[in-house]
Amino acid sequence: MSVVTSSSHPSSGSISPAAAPGPDPAGAPTPGDLAGALARLREQAPLVQCLTNAVVMPLTANGLLALGASPAMVDVPQEAGPFARVASGVLVNLGTPHAAQREAMREAVTAAEEAGTPWVLDPVAIGALPVRTALAAELVERRPAVVKGNASEVMALAGLGGGGRGTDSADDVAAALPAARELAARTGGVVVVTGPVDLVTDGVLEVRVPGGHPLLTRVTGGGCLLGAVVAAFAGSSAPLVAATAACAWYGAAAAAAGRRPGAGGPGSFAVALLDELAALDPATPPAGLA
Amino acid sequence: MSVVTSSSHPSSGSISPAAAPGPDPAGAPTPGDLAGALARLREQAPLVQCLTNAVVMPLTANGLLALGASPAMVDVPQEAGPFARVASGVLVNLGTPHAAQREAMREAVTAAEEAGTPWVLDPVAIGALPVRTALAAELVERRPAVVKGNASEVMALAGLGGGGRGTDSADDVAAALPAARELAARTGGVVVVTGPVDLVTDGVLEVRVPGGHPLLTRVTGGGCLLGAVVAAFAGSSAPLVAATAACAWYGAAAAAAGRRPGAGGPGSFAVALLDELAALDPATPPAGLA
Amino acid sequence: MSVVTSSSHPSSGSISPAAAPGPDPAGAPTPGDLAGALARLREQAPLVQCLTNAVVMPLTANGLLALGASPAMVDVPQEAGPFARVASGVLVNLGTPHAAQREAMREAVTAAEEAGTPWVLDPVAIGALPVRTALAAELVERRPAVVKGNASEVMALAGLGGGGRGTDSADDVAAALPAARELAARTGGVVVVTGPVDLVTDGVLEVRVPGGHPLLTRVTGGGCLLGAVVAAFAGSSAPLVAATAACAWYGAAAAAAGRRPGAGGPGSFAVALLDELAALDPATPPAGLA
Repeated sequence: MSVVTSSSHPSSGSISPAAAPGPDPAGAPTPGDLAGALARLREQAPLVQCLTNAVVMPLTANGLLALGASPAMVDVPQEAGPFARVASGVLVNLGTPHAAQREAMREAVTAAEEAGTPWVLDPVAIGALPVRTALAAELVERRPAVVKGNASEVMALAGLGGGGRGTDSADDVAAALPAARELAARTGGVVVVTGPVDLVTDGVLEVRVPGGHPLLTRVTGGGCLLGAVVAAFAGSSAPLVAATAACAWYGAAAAAAGRRPGAGGPGSFAVALLDELAALDPATPPAGLA
Repeated sequence: MSVVTSSSHPSSGSISPAAAPGPDPAGAPTPGDLAGALARLREQAPLVQCLTNAVVMPLTANGLLALGASPAMVDVPQEAGPFARVASGVLVNLGTPHAAQREAMREAVTAAEEAGTPWVLDPVAIGALPVRTALAAELVERRPAVVKGNASEVMALAGLGGGGRGTDSADDVAAALPAARELAARTGGVVVVTGPVDLVTDGVLEVRVPGGHPLLTRVTGGGCLLGAVVAAFAGSSAPLVAATAACAWYGAAAAAAGRRPGAGGPGSFAVALLDELAALDPATPPAGLA
Repeated sequence: MSVVTSSSHPSSGSISPAAAPGPDPAGAPTPGDLAGALARLREQAPLVQCLTNAVVMPLTANGLLALGASPAMVDVPQEAGPFARVASGVLVNLGTPHAAQREAMREAVTAAEEAGTPWVLDPVAIGALPVRTALAAELVERRPAVVKGNASEVMALAGLGGGGRGTDSADDVAAALPAARELAARTGGVVVVTGPVDLVTDGVLEVRVPGGHPLLTRVTGGGCLLGAVVAAFAGSSAPLVAATAACAWYGAAAAAAGRRPGAGGPGSFAVALLDELAALDPATPPAGLA
């Protein structure tokens, strides 16, 4: 797998400082940055608080455990806030936003802002669905370190409060680039647009990360888990490195899972994905990263 | 696998029109009807809204994805109604009916009725448990395109409002035939009674679908997923064809999973089931269907 | 696998009678007791009501099914109480204690007490998180047949109302022994402290159960499932036998899963664990038990 980078303003590669520790490279992340990010994650076993949808909780928690992080699905009001102060990273995924969870999300985001805990927003299926769309519009103003979505979600989120351009349900990654840049500028953070090639931008620098596997789209929560992986990396790497490392290593694990002889269908692919996340080795990055 | 059909009134094989598109055969579904139903499902990738229990959400979503449908677990009040208007089919499964989900179910069913979206009722474990039993009695009057349950559930549901015959917890499929017929007549739709041989009836025609595998009863959500598969087929086939195709193809996938050398236990069987759902091929129906 | 037993008061090996049927041995459980416990479980297929966290529901239900029990995730208010009267055992796991589930837990525990249904308390992550900690302090006074937790959880629970010793987040099993004994004396039941070697005590007798596999800690719900397995055994064995049998047989299944050639990662290990739970045979107990 290779990581292709570009920048519209290469000389001003500023990255949102947010609250994340770890090095803050002046330019696009290098393969060495990505290897270092995984090594730190494995060493620190970051506590990742997930307020996520009911469908993907098991895969999300298992994927984080396999990767080397420590998942905690603390999404009950009165607990979510205190926990976000001590977590290494927080994921807010809007897939099944029931009332109590919405309350917990607001608590967690407020606490994360105050404590400097980096948090990730995954605005699942926003656009037409009213409850999550309003919640996303509210939360995006709270400076998520990273926003991760597919092209339609990113375009919908950028449009909210930015002129009401609405959403396009059949968008590709390239079409979402202007929206991603605008959103990154507005949040002061990083935006990931997922697709066959993922796009990562802080509004200035752009990184394109190929990899992955078509079967990943046949596994429920394959995209949601990536959001949690971003939150795990954000605990010990600056947002642009964290988001790029998450896409690159996750894509490498998916590609490796797809190469397994037994993983010819979505069931066995999902099992292999967890095995491959556990088998990722910072010392031997996937071919394209070297 | 063979599909055995019979009819108490073969000359009047009427099928509930409901809102489903697709052919409306005058008699019991033929193997060709079932192959056509899968081909249409694969071509259209129907959007299936699932309001289902918390335990089986991952398997349900993964099973639908494997089959070729597009699952959407939209079960939040204020979102469930609007989504049911655009979905191809809706599943309402009463396995863990928390208050907010009950509200979302009523919304979704009302919208489905108005928009003509076919919807499937799975009255999980009704009879003794008061919350879901009352809800099932209410919802069954809203003309589900298909009701799917085991013998006890179907007998309990038919008894509700029909004379209070109550439920019998150790019923077999044959014993539930009168209840299934009555229920189909009352809803104007189709009723599926699951068991070693599934029974499908529209109140007049009866289809018996053997197949499946004993390990399916050792996988949590093995029955609940079938309800979602019925909803997926109902998006592009009339209810009797949809229900029969769902039972036949799902049973074929389960039987194939059981034949895999590695699938000797419930864990590996569940993985193989997803792989086999993805591998189903309309052009090469399972032996018994030909 | 061997089961090592010891007792601080070997001559007074009394075991909480609770409501569980089955033999009530005068001393620490023997391998024969454990074989008998599994044989009874398989014969009776106990109905195990689980009020557990959203993350582990699928694994919990699948693990119980694989073992030979009948899981029922009935956690809705107004249903949880009536069901606890007819269940063989009840699990109350505090992992994601949303408001409606808390209400259902109180209902279930009250009904279990009245009906004599043995119930198991798993005080997940109590200590710092306020909602679950308060709930655990309330429920532990309701005489759970078995409390199951890691060392930190057991120490936190023993400290509640017992002098405020608070919790220690890096405790090992040996350090939790005094807390476990005190807690057992207070509840009149049995306490399990999980770790590389599990500790089971009724306040007088102590049993140490080695076994298991390191990959079990990389599977979400690996510990939560053990709590459900305890509840399954508690339906037909006295608490000390039930808890010991659960740890021993579950550990045996995990060890066997870890020996499988293909189970080198957490994904395939979890699949193998379910297969091995189904393959457990009372007639051929694992080597160390003989």
